[in-house]
Amino acid sequence: MDKDIDFYFDFASPYSYFAAPRLEKIAAAHGRRVRWLPVLVTAMCEATGSPLAPLVQLKWQYVQRDLARSAHAEGLSFRVPPGFPSLLLAPARAMLWIRRAHDDKTATAFARTCLRAYFGDGVDINDAQVLTGIGAALGVDRQALLAGMADSAIKAEFRDATSHAPAKGAFGVPFVIADGEPFWGADRLGQLDTWLGRIRELA
Amino acid sequence: MDKDIDFYFDFASPYSYFAAPRLEKIAAAHGRRVRWLPVLVTAMCEATGSPLAPLVQLKWQYVQRDLARSAHAEGLSFRVPPGFPSLLLAPARAMLWIRRAHDDKTATAFARTCLRAYFGDGVDINDAQVLTGIGAALGVDRQALLAGMADSAIKAEFRDATSHAPAKGAFGVPFVIADGEPFWGADRLGQLDTWLGRIRELA
Repeated sequence: MDKDIDFYFDFASPYSYFAAPRLEKIAAAHGRRVRWLPVLVTAMCEATGSPLAPLVQLKWQYVQRDLARSAHAEGLSFRVPPGFPSLLLAPARAMLWIRRAHDDKTATAFARTCLRAYFGDGVDINDAQVLTGIGAALGVDRQALLAGMADSAIKAEFRDATSHAPAKGAFGVPFVIADGEPFWGADRLGQLDTWLGRIRELA
Repeated sequence: MDKDIDFYFDFASPYSYFAAPRLEKIAAAHGRRVRWLPVLVTAMCEATGSPLAPLVQLKWQYVQRDLARSAHAEGLSFRVPPGFPSLLLAPARAMLWIRRAHDDKTATAFARTCLRAYFGDGVDINDAQVLTGIGAALGVDRQALLAGMADSAIKAEFRDATSHAPAKGAFGVPFVIADGEPFWGADRLGQLDTWLGRIRELA
């Protein structure tokens, strides 16, 4: 079995939402698995000195058009969520706890559902009750999840994941690293597909 | 005849080089013409407070891989030119003078040749002798071009084109505006194609 493909994403990133379904299709087509790695992209951008596009007024006007067109191109429903852009730490912590307490499959399903609920339906995924509801549908105990999200070890795990990502080559989201080869942005998935194909030919 | 498609580019921008041939193909397929508009992207980025990716060390490592993959995807020869990234004012001024003294077709051919020479073959297109040589092959007088590039009115035209671009919605390169609809980046040409097709259906 080949190594997993690392997928750095932020629950607050619409381009992460756009990238995820196609990334999973591409990975599956090449017999590879995707490992979902939540990070806090605002903290990464502060570390590398690059302001996020939605936070620059001139770019935000552009980005709104680009978001609508990109969602349409991926065949995904999309709306700019109320209060966007927000710092979404709670769903990331919840996901990391679910990965520890349950398994990777449940944690990934939780992340997928959160992205769809937030960007597809405008649901507030920073609300603990919403998160425990999504978890409950996947068999996760509500009280245990609430306690897990508040656990200082989980908070530290998320903080460390964000601060260590640049050393692994990831400085934004969505960011994909496959066998050390980096791909930044939903618009690079075509190149990832080409690259995975070449790797298979060489294998 | 529909309005021209505005193509903001920088002679120093490899993604402008990658975008140009495909942009012209897409425009032609929809019966549209491309108007090439040189700008100085470093000045635009300073104005909007966004550092250029090649100037952030962590991103530059990534960008080198992305450049090689992107060139391959477009079927273009590419090398990182000596001294890259450079401020390339001379070819932009030369192009603007050629557009005034000759015509748009000659100016565009000049720009295409410059991009290919710089990114395809590593030729120094900030060298006045190189530029007059490229011009001469298109029927442009060498001495007149040298004088034109040094003309204060041409210098002002280039400076103004750069400073006015953000007000038209362009804040980076390559940047395409078609009937008011903005597309930023070589990776948005697919969306431009879709969009031009929908405009034609509605017409």
